[in-house]
Amino acid sequence: MKALVYKGPGNKVWTDKPKPELQKPTDAIIRISKTTICGTDLHILKGDVPEVVDGRILGHEGVGIVEAVGNGVQQFHVGDRVLISCITSCGKCESCKKGMYSHCEDGGWILGHLIDGTQAEYVRIPYADNSLYPLPAGVDEEALVMLSDILPTGFEIGVLKGNVQPGSTVAIVGAGPVGLAALLTAQFFSPAEIIMIDLDDNRLEVARKFGATQTVNSADGKAAEQVLGLTNQQGVDVAIEAVGISPTFAICQDIVKAGGHIANVGVHGKSVELHLEKLWTHNITLTTGLVDTNSTPMLLKTVTSGKLEPNKLITHRFDLADVLKAYEVFGNAAKENALKVILSQG
Amino acid sequence: MKALVYKGPGNKVWTDKPKPELQKPTDAIIRISKTTICGTDLHILKGDVPEVVDGRILGHEGVGIVEAVGNGVQQFHVGDRVLISCITSCGKCESCKKGMYSHCEDGGWILGHLIDGTQAEYVRIPYADNSLYPLPAGVDEEALVMLSDILPTGFEIGVLKGNVQPGSTVAIVGAGPVGLAALLTAQFFSPAEIIMIDLDDNRLEVARKFGATQTVNSADGKAAEQVLGLTNQQGVDVAIEAVGISPTFAICQDIVKAGGHIANVGVHGKSVELHLEKLWTHNITLTTGLVDTNSTPMLLKTVTSGKLEPNKLITHRFDLADVLKAYEVFGNAAKENALKVILSQG
Amino acid sequence: MKALVYKGPGNKVWTDKPKPELQKPTDAIIRISKTTICGTDLHILKGDVPEVVDGRILGHEGVGIVEAVGNGVQQFHVGDRVLISCITSCGKCESCKKGMYSHCEDGGWILGHLIDGTQAEYVRIPYADNSLYPLPAGVDEEALVMLSDILPTGFEIGVLKGNVQPGSTVAIVGAGPVGLAALLTAQFFSPAEIIMIDLDDNRLEVARKFGATQTVNSADGKAAEQVLGLTNQQGVDVAIEAVGISPTFAICQDIVKAGGHIANVGVHGKSVELHLEKLWTHNITLTTGLVDTNSTPMLLKTVTSGKLEPNKLITHRFDLADVLKAYEVFGNAAKENALKVILSQG
Amino acid sequence: MKALVYKGPGNKVWTDKPKPELQKPTDAIIRISKTTICGTDLHILKGDVPEVVDGRILGHEGVGIVEAVGNGVQQFHVGDRVLISCITSCGKCESCKKGMYSHCEDGGWILGHLIDGTQAEYVRIPYADNSLYPLPAGVDEEALVMLSDILPTGFEIGVLKGNVQPGSTVAIVGAGPVGLAALLTAQFFSPAEIIMIDLDDNRLEVARKFGATQTVNSADGKAAEQVLGLTNQQGVDVAIEAVGISPTFAICQDIVKAGGHIANVGVHGKSVELHLEKLWTHNITLTTGLVDTNSTPMLLKTVTSGKLEPNKLITHRFDLADVLKAYEVFGNAAKENALKVILSQG
Repeated sequence: MKALVYKGPGNKVWTDKPKPELQKPTDAIIRISKTTICGTDLHILKGDVPEVVDGRILGHEGVGIVEAVGNGVQQFHVGDRVLISCITSCGKCESCKKGMYSHCEDGGWILGHLIDGTQAEYVRIPYADNSLYPLPAGVDEEALVMLSDILPTGFEIGVLKGNVQPGSTVAIVGAGPVGLAALLTAQFFSPAEIIMIDLDDNRLEVARKFGATQTVNSADGKAAEQVLGLTNQQGVDVAIEAVGISPTFAICQDIVKAGGHIANVGVHGKSVELHLEKLWTHNITLTTGLVDTNSTPMLLKTVTSGKLEPNKLITHRFDLADVLKAYEVFGNAAKENALKVILSQG
Repeated sequence: MKALVYKGPGNKVWTDKPKPELQKPTDAIIRISKTTICGTDLHILKGDVPEVVDGRILGHEGVGIVEAVGNGVQQFHVGDRVLISCITSCGKCESCKKGMYSHCEDGGWILGHLIDGTQAEYVRIPYADNSLYPLPAGVDEEALVMLSDILPTGFEIGVLKGNVQPGSTVAIVGAGPVGLAALLTAQFFSPAEIIMIDLDDNRLEVARKFGATQTVNSADGKAAEQVLGLTNQQGVDVAIEAVGISPTFAICQDIVKAGGHIANVGVHGKSVELHLEKLWTHNITLTTGLVDTNSTPMLLKTVTSGKLEPNKLITHRFDLADVLKAYEVFGNAAKENALKVILSQG
Repeated sequence: MKALVYKGPGNKVWTDKPKPELQKPTDAIIRISKTTICGTDLHILKGDVPEVVDGRILGHEGVGIVEAVGNGVQQFHVGDRVLISCITSCGKCESCKKGMYSHCEDGGWILGHLIDGTQAEYVRIPYADNSLYPLPAGVDEEALVMLSDILPTGFEIGVLKGNVQPGSTVAIVGAGPVGLAALLTAQFFSPAEIIMIDLDDNRLEVARKFGATQTVNSADGKAAEQVLGLTNQQGVDVAIEAVGISPTFAICQDIVKAGGHIANVGVHGKSVELHLEKLWTHNITLTTGLVDTNSTPMLLKTVTSGKLEPNKLITHRFDLADVLKAYEVFGNAAKENALKVILSQG
Repeated sequence: MKALVYKGPGNKVWTDKPKPELQKPTDAIIRISKTTICGTDLHILKGDVPEVVDGRILGHEGVGIVEAVGNGVQQFHVGDRVLISCITSCGKCESCKKGMYSHCEDGGWILGHLIDGTQAEYVRIPYADNSLYPLPAGVDEEALVMLSDILPTGFEIGVLKGNVQPGSTVAIVGAGPVGLAALLTAQFFSPAEIIMIDLDDNRLEVARKFGATQTVNSADGKAAEQVLGLTNQQGVDVAIEAVGISPTFAICQDIVKAGGHIANVGVHGKSVELHLEKLWTHNITLTTGLVDTNSTPMLLKTVTSGKLEPNKLITHRFDLADVLKAYEVFGNAAKENALKVILSQG
């Protein structure tokens, strides 16, 4: 089969690879119908994620059709249409029993990372019963690709860990796909204000359409002052960091009010400065996390009922075979006005 | 009356000051029976807390007898024996209505900070109904001085925010009075292990007597490795920082397990490095805070019933008039084997 | 002044009463601008609430203007426009310090119950700082009368205690004013379904307009079967009882799913049968409660921002002097298509 | 093999049955080392649990040795010593993903109920990876039999759902094995008082030894008055019902204070009267539930560390082959001073 293969920092190739086979009774083989590219894939390609070895097939999102199942798989059968979760979970270990599937002792985020991923014609999914979801009938498959990773990540790691509540004032730093996923799902809790902060006016305009009540362009380095101005100098109840660099994390520290939350969603490559000399008296809560995907069934329901429309996040579409072109566009997101790209296999 | 007065960085004097008077209907005047010195007082004396002005009477802990009350005070009468909370709260503002008394808009930590404090023969307590507690009959007054600040601080900011649970593995970095208060009160939740970390073997020995199941001397810079060794390389569920400097905060980051909590109790004078490049995937929760003293009524009950014996923390006793000598001892705590000192006025 | 006075079971009179005066430094006197009638007032008039004595002025809701304040009142001044909470709280007792204002040791629900109430030209409000709220500028005063009692009651006792979450399936039994208040505020949490159950098709039609996704007329005694039919025989996550009689409470027991919540809001005059022979294995949570009004500041914000439009609940308007006519209409709510009536004093 | 078989209401027999065999890849066969009898087994024998059919092997508790495993079992191997949980869970269904294993769609409480149980030489355990626990080395096996059901039941359904907190006043109605399990595990949270209520002075004496601070014999019908007397007429924060009949549930309603919890643990055969005419204003929370066994790993740790000594609950020991004698003793618990009986197979 064809697959997008990582060939060391800076290099990738669309090439032939052996079709995956069942290795354990709990595996399933999925034929990919639709997949996408994540910001994390760009990090991997830069060489930022050294655990990813030369030869690895990338990708951890997608929907597809069950091609084969092991004899330990109960919930899925050949021909079923399924959503692939970015998180693989055994359902048996101490972490899984706590619902912390991201830290499954034999799973977690492994797709396109420690085992071959979804940017391919076929993919092997371990622990299929716990790592796949049946597709609801009649729902747009493209929309559901957004539920493999970014929607549950924005919701669980941004909104739930940030403790967004009715009446809250929320700021989201970073209007990329995950920041926008947090924006969409924060609205489940009816916050009073959602202030979106980014460098790119185009993305801020998108944020307005997606429900941001205020937007702040941080290019002038005065985002924190502006947010304080918008909140009577009180700051925000919840600051969601969705970029992953030091300056955006600093904004969160400057704008969080006493008793408030900072929810870190961004993928950080370096340490940051934490101003405990100020924050030690502020009764704040700071959280981090990989997504556990516990919210996936609920999110599937909200997409089915039309309350959540994640296809809004999709800006470009390609054939799976054109994945290199898709990387080109996604890698120049600002210039291309790109959010999420869909790769389809007919 | 006589009082211990701050005279700018490095200077203090035991001198005459006017006896305080009622200023508002909700005030009370208390004759101090017993007070103590806090590590924060040493910080003030070094000049680390610039809001404290020359001429301020220090101290924010103590028990005493009501000398006078305003006509808006309902719960206390002249002659009542009372515990003074380090936190003053109006009971009316938005923060107070949330139970976040530490951030009361007209109170919070003001005693010995923004208004005159308790290291004096008399003190004025604003919002007396909300900021004093009746002393239970028959309880050792010295023990109760520990409930003005360090017991609720160790419990609320360390144990409760750290989410200590039955079966948890807990590490406490810093075996000073507040770290030991966290150690005593963590035991309310029956954790499986409490590992105490400090530079001072004498304090570690005290910690063993107070219930620590393991102790680690961090002098060799290998505390984190030792804690990992004691926990099968898994780390701890809860790491409580009770020192307030960068190296001790670093230990907490190195030993907290995925899904765990870091509860910062230490008073920090500088920023610290936060290793988000590692922690972003670890699903951790980091908290900070000034004490709200919501737990004070419960702690009073546990002292009354004998379940908590905070007088264990008292190592030295002085007459109030000898407060300068007491500062000498408390300021050389390691050499003097000092934890808390009691200052009494007969 | 004129006031609506209870004269024993079945009797009320609009008559002269002495204008209230300040009794304590923490009191305020309010000139009523707008008030309303509550279902509880009808219960009192039937004699169901024996603590209410002959001669008592009824009413526990309203907005008005501060006429006088005691010298212990800090937050309000003569001329301020205020919202009167149905709950009086001292802010100092053990219950208040827990945020359980409904059980304030010197307050709770006392207006129009244990002390004179708001269906009068003037009313005395004890602990004014804790029991009044400033009216936001420019907001419809009629809408805010709904925040004295029914909106926080529906929200706190129905929605919050019922633990409505994004994606939840909710049933509300009783489409009277409080049931509709629960319906409006449940939507803050984006439940997947809200099924409204009542005997009155007119009220069910109102419920549809207010956001119910399904309605069930329970007149045929088969409401539970219908709800199970609407939920694939699974039942609901949250059942809110907003009537206060045995058959409606029985519906809640029949439709709650394993792991679900029953939130009782209704005022019950008699005991009910609890089917523990079935429910003991069902991992359910059942809650009761008087409103604490902790949510009032948040609700004020949502009305100010236009997210919540409680004036939808108002169907009839009268001069305060026509309160007897208003009782006539409100007492025949079904026939008159009445929800809430507003009584105004020019 | 030999097994204890239910033969319709009132009848049981120790007889030959076919040795169980693996039916699915996720099954294990366990050779029983030790098992016990539960109060629920007596209910079944009376005919109170009609789902139990003639021919069923009873019992849902025990420890044993793995005799065989299916090829889908990963965590256990032939020869492993294991604890059998009373709850079988697939780890995959909606209930399991919420951690509500008691309502597993293909499991829950099925042993000795819907499938053959543990009062036999061998038992088949479905979903072995999720339903068995490895025995810690060096721990008394008899003690661990108490962890199959009664310890996690008392802890999760009584103590955790009842929200026992440091300083709480707790009452437990019923000093049978499960009530005593709640007593032992409530102490993990350091409540101020634990009042034990029972008809049997012998059991109350046991309760004293196990940590009850007060005991009340309810034989005179005045238990509620006595509890109110012991609590300054305030009642208790937490009332745990561990009997399962109307009069004991009534005591709980009479003694719970405003804001308090009633945690029902008892197995009820009939409905009870719920006094909503009083409780609707009391802000109480009432919970029910089958055990989910999420706490089993933590309880195993506390037994291993010696903090919990469940073998205190064992009063009698028999050979498995003498199970009929054991039923005789356990069925006359009061006369025999019996709590839990152990049945061993050498």
